[in-house]
Amino acid sequence: MRGETYFILFLGIAVASHSALASKKLLKEQSPCKSFVLYYHDTLFNGTDAVNATSAMVANKTSLGDFNFGMLVVFDDPMTTDNHLLSPPVARAQGFYFYDKKNEYNAWFAYTLVFNSSEHKGTLNIMGADLMPEKTRDLSVVGGTGDFFMARGIVTLQTDTLQGDFYFRLKMDIKLYECY
Amino acid sequence: MRGETYFILFLGIAVASHSALASKKLLKEQSPCKSFVLYYHDTLFNGTDAVNATSAMVANKTSLGDFNFGMLVVFDDPMTTDNHLLSPPVARAQGFYFYDKKNEYNAWFAYTLVFNSSEHKGTLNIMGADLMPEKTRDLSVVGGTGDFFMARGIVTLQTDTLQGDFYFRLKMDIKLYECY
Amino acid sequence: MRGETYFILFLGIAVASHSALASKKLLKEQSPCKSFVLYYHDTLFNGTDAVNATSAMVANKTSLGDFNFGMLVVFDDPMTTDNHLLSPPVARAQGFYFYDKKNEYNAWFAYTLVFNSSEHKGTLNIMGADLMPEKTRDLSVVGGTGDFFMARGIVTLQTDTLQGDFYFRLKMDIKLYECY
Repeated sequence: MRGETYFILFLGIAVASHSALASKKLLKEQSPCKSFVLYYHDTLFNGTDAVNATSAMVANKTSLGDFNFGMLVVFDDPMTTDNHLLSPPVARAQGFYFYDKKNEYNAWFAYTLVFNSSEHKGTLNIMGADLMPEKTRDLSVVGGTGDFFMARGIVTLQTDTLQGDFYFRLKMDIKLYECY
Repeated sequence: MRGETYFILFLGIAVASHSALASKKLLKEQSPCKSFVLYYHDTLFNGTDAVNATSAMVANKTSLGDFNFGMLVVFDDPMTTDNHLLSPPVARAQGFYFYDKKNEYNAWFAYTLVFNSSEHKGTLNIMGADLMPEKTRDLSVVGGTGDFFMARGIVTLQTDTLQGDFYFRLKMDIKLYECY
Repeated sequence: MRGETYFILFLGIAVASHSALASKKLLKEQSPCKSFVLYYHDTLFNGTDAVNATSAMVANKTSLGDFNFGMLVVFDDPMTTDNHLLSPPVARAQGFYFYDKKNEYNAWFAYTLVFNSSEHKGTLNIMGADLMPEKTRDLSVVGGTGDFFMARGIVTLQTDTLQGDFYFRLKMDIKLYECY
């Protein structure tokens, strides 16, 4: 009888654990189960330099505003562990971005980080707004495969350099809060 | 000894809590941890009204069918708490939609709700099919950042008005079932 | 007093259950809560066959490489339970793909599986890289609605056939690891 009471009590607690998870700030205060920093290098095709280019424009900017509204770029960009373009890539970022604001630069990204090294095999799927005027901006890791099976988390972007119209580099701080 | 027995028993229950979550209908019957209604206003650029427009077509419709198949629109649309276009926006919806059916109007959306008010700071990332002939249709909230850290849920769309080719308004009922 | 001790102890265990979930390989070794195989049929519009076509190109390939880099296709494709194009569809796949590699064929997908049958009503939202040279490749199920409320999982793609430029078929092995 007393055992049953305990059982019910503790079952209640265990089932309630999701509500606990669902309550604010539990994970916010906890550190990621996995995190790493990578650099994203976007070298836009200028029409002639196919050897070095890793992205290309597939839809032109519209005439709405002066900040490339609607310009859509597809990329297969190298990811490196430091900020050197020519460092050996540890992953590829495959996806697209477009500009979407008429009165300032602002973008939106969806892409997959594809890992195929001795250290990691698998992918992370990411989407979100790149609020370019902000010093840092957060996107969502919405899923993963392989070594990153079912992962979720946050990617914090920071512009590392911007060189003319054809090269920019982002620091990506990848933090996973759900790992398996 | 008896303490150990309890420990093992209750550890078993606690670990089982995910299976409980994974079992059907647990959350279905439960109310969202957070919910709110916002109105989405899409004013498509007609080529001249750049002052009022908040979206623009970046790829033309194809000749497959008579329902704009393939027409792709990028947007930075205001979100308001009531259905008045000129109410102060409480968020921006940044993303894109395209039409994707040859024999009726049907669309697909991916976008970020960007909150930057005294009440909320952060983003919600959303994607899914907009089955326009249905009175209501559900999209997925696949992630969130800031105040909406790691959120998941459902957005229910309802067409509130459709005015010619250049303005439509959707009621978005945002229900989060995973909050932190 | 002793009861309180137990309570605290077990509350600790219950709260820790998320960390247990977060630890590696828990779900990896477990079977999906739901799984099924469907075939995806993509019949690209060739400019004249609107009756049979279910997808259309909305942005042309760029001149970066020789593998359709940047070619963007919107689709509303039938999903069948066997590999016959003319079998009754049990769902539609609505979304888009584009090619994104300059030195081989490689693609990126985002789409919704729309179910509207006596067996299933609801949607699954999917995104990820389609690494075409690999025999199988994994995408993420990032959310679901209706019968698939809040689902997450993995879709494993396998090319079933490739017929010229206008028809290909993928086997999609859909495995859900989070069900409600």
